Amino acid sequence: MSDSIKYFLPEEKIAKSWYNIVADLPAPPAPVLHPGTGQPIGPDDLAPLFPMALIGQEVSAERDIEIPKPVRDVYRMWRPSPLYRARRLEQALDTPAKIYYKYEGGSPAGSHKPNTAVAQAFYNREEGIKKISTETGAGQWGSSLAFAGALFGIEISVFMVKVSYDQKPYRRAMMETYGANCVASPSNLTEYGRAVLASDPDTTGSLGMAISEAVEVAAKNDDTKYALGSVLNHVLLHQTVIGMEAIEQMEMADDYPDIIIGCAGGGSNFAGLGFPFVGAKLRGGPAPTVIAVEPAACPSLTRGTFAYDFGDTGHFTPLVKMHTLGSTFVPPGFHAGGLRYHGMAPLVSHLLHLGEIEARAVHQNPCFEAGIQFARAEGIIPAPEATHAVRVAIDEALKCKVEGTSRTILFNLSGHGHFDMAAYDEFLSGKLEDKDYDAEKLDSALAALPEVAAE
Amino acid sequence: MSDSIKYFLPEEKIAKSWYNIVADLPAPPAPVLHPGTGQPIGPDDLAPLFPMALIGQEVSAERDIEIPKPVRDVYRMWRPSPLYRARRLEQALDTPAKIYYKYEGGSPAGSHKPNTAVAQAFYNREEGIKKISTETGAGQWGSSLAFAGALFGIEISVFMVKVSYDQKPYRRAMMETYGANCVASPSNLTEYGRAVLASDPDTTGSLGMAISEAVEVAAKNDDTKYALGSVLNHVLLHQTVIGMEAIEQMEMADDYPDIIIGCAGGGSNFAGLGFPFVGAKLRGGPAPTVIAVEPAACPSLTRGTFAYDFGDTGHFTPLVKMHTLGSTFVPPGFHAGGLRYHGMAPLVSHLLHLGEIEARAVHQNPCFEAGIQFARAEGIIPAPEATHAVRVAIDEALKCKVEGTSRTILFNLSGHGHFDMAAYDEFLSGKLEDKDYDAEKLDSALAALPEVAAE
Repeated sequence: MSDSIKYFLPEEKIAKSWYNIVADLPAPPAPVLHPGTGQPIGPDDLAPLFPMALIGQEVSAERDIEIPKPVRDVYRMWRPSPLYRARRLEQALDTPAKIYYKYEGGSPAGSHKPNTAVAQAFYNREEGIKKISTETGAGQWGSSLAFAGALFGIEISVFMVKVSYDQKPYRRAMMETYGANCVASPSNLTEYGRAVLASDPDTTGSLGMAISEAVEVAAKNDDTKYALGSVLNHVLLHQTVIGMEAIEQMEMADDYPDIIIGCAGGGSNFAGLGFPFVGAKLRGGPAPTVIAVEPAACPSLTRGTFAYDFGDTGHFTPLVKMHTLGSTFVPPGFHAGGLRYHGMAPLVSHLLHLGEIEARAVHQNPCFEAGIQFARAEGIIPAPEATHAVRVAIDEALKCKVEGTSRTILFNLSGHGHFDMAAYDEFLSGKLEDKDYDAEKLDSALAALPEVAAE
Repeated sequence: MSDSIKYFLPEEKIAKSWYNIVADLPAPPAPVLHPGTGQPIGPDDLAPLFPMALIGQEVSAERDIEIPKPVRDVYRMWRPSPLYRARRLEQALDTPAKIYYKYEGGSPAGSHKPNTAVAQAFYNREEGIKKISTETGAGQWGSSLAFAGALFGIEISVFMVKVSYDQKPYRRAMMETYGANCVASPSNLTEYGRAVLASDPDTTGSLGMAISEAVEVAAKNDDTKYALGSVLNHVLLHQTVIGMEAIEQMEMADDYPDIIIGCAGGGSNFAGLGFPFVGAKLRGGPAPTVIAVEPAACPSLTRGTFAYDFGDTGHFTPLVKMHTLGSTFVPPGFHAGGLRYHGMAPLVSHLLHLGEIEARAVHQNPCFEAGIQFARAEGIIPAPEATHAVRVAIDEALKCKVEGTSRTILFNLSGHGHFDMAAYDEFLSGKLEDKDYDAEKLDSALAALPEVAAE
């Protein structure tokens, strides 16, 4: 049996700048609009929510944006992250394909999220911010920002979607261990939360509602800013260290991917791995197939509309043009909580619209099946979100087997599943229901999209 | 703020041999005795339980024992493990001490246990073994052997102490994800288990009972061997990769520890880090203070007797000379399940007896306090077991502050606490009770030690 291979970069290889794909786009992304005026917003409109450095990154068209030394110094705790050639999995599948994966679960919080959490905490501290409010679904983002807040001395308040807050007390305990405050959303702490609770006291909450609460707190308190763990340009930017390292590691392996795969909820881990490769292609380099994998139960890329929409349920955010299921769409409960968002990052949506990337939707149970096959071959238990990428990587490898061709497949293993073993347990005991979305609810959510003059 | 520093070795630096401290001991350890005859046992007595290669390692006096290539190939998944200089923690403590830690939580199972699980699975497979039975307390060992079994195609059956089985369903789910079978012990699957259940149907179980069940299964089934995750010489041997790497990493840091610290239940992670340094001292090198830290509620090194005793409650194992609280001693329930064992590795006990190492007992709640302080400074949340080492490292660093002297402290962060957040939650909410052992029960357990002719 041939063994799996690890490609490890020395610490000096941590990127000195993030890669901004906007610089290489054939057409610029649509502007962000003010919900009141329908006109493009300026930096001042965002100033109550974000520090100016991040607002600058959000609208920047520069290709290379320097990573500050204090951020790189924290990255060194777990970066460069390893890239593996999954030889054991290849053998288990008996495929001629070569399968590589980049593993982001080695960070203290267990996923790729700290790549941006650390950067966001740093820039906030630089501008004297003492408090940040945020939301979290399954808890990956909340615990990552809690970790970053502990390192930079910033007080973190997390609004955690109620259904996850109740289901995943360990994630809450992790945030509290890092010193953060975590409440179930909707909560009584905000006007928006109180309004939702008044009309529906038993609501399970949603990411859209939690965003509204976190934004309200930042907007109403001068000493508090807001942070988001995905979707926005600057968040995707910070994740590009993943793909930049992967390019060097594929060189070490003397190989280049034909197919690149990432799971996509808001889009940040997918973009983090994929954008540096897409950028190379846009600049005339090799042209791999780049696939964003989403849950069939929350299919913004494959069933949503490319249109202006709100990022939250309370409609406090600006309007962004993105693939969306409508901000009022509530997906059914499933275990990949990090993929339960109605929209998709504008930059990912834009690239799909331009035909530069592809999208695929997969069902939950085949994903867990893939996660278990992966764990038994490679040892690492993937987070439910990451099993979506594993599923498509295995599908593509099996297609190679049928066709008798060898392709090089690279996917992002964005996090481990140590906090999600209840989901594996449910699957292993045959109790995991593979829910689909409600087509009627989707139709009505899409019909409720805002009308936007500028469009 | 100065940042914590990571010392990372390239893959080529994975040790080619394990270090056997027996070769350097000033006095040989006491022989293992047959419980029936009171005479030293031979390899044939152990053959029903272990493959011959491991029996050979158990009694070897060779200093360097080659690590087979297939074992090193698996080690490469997460080894060499990083060594960190905890500068952020030093600053939080405002201490002149230098604090280093070796981090073993990056393995797929999240602790140091795979270092030996992989080796044991390999040797069993080499000798054609298809099934291994074992026990586990908190689940670190069971999940590590399950992981190794998946890689080498061996069926793993785990007897998990009932109280942990009920409290930690995620660990069980992890073992099952790797394809292992896991039952609560005592169980109805063994004669011993049925006997215990008949006399005490509501027992919480204990590690000693679970060992008896696992040994019984191996003894009665020709196709099944037994595996232990600590205590035995060959298990400690496999862990010495930790300390061997640490020696090279301390060289990279141009430093050498004055104080070396590891938590100790059965003794394997402590020995893994400490023995290569103790060996260097025995061969005339520098003489650091080497401290084994145990829970005050299960204090085999500080309150136990150095005497021949059984490794299990059912008295199926040979007699080994060790620090013991008596095989009938049942410690109170506390969260560091990996430290709830009545005995201590014979080699660790022997070194304490020779005055080559020291022992210290600490209480549970100050350990969690230290774990939280560590997490907020360094980002990694330690397993409850590992917080014992963190506690003493912080205590020693604070002593340096009082004395105004700088010492170099190195400790083993043997695993992360992702599966133990319920314990952190209990501590953070002020509900964690700091139980002590029952002195009367300890007296009666010590009075019940076996009489051994050869002693």
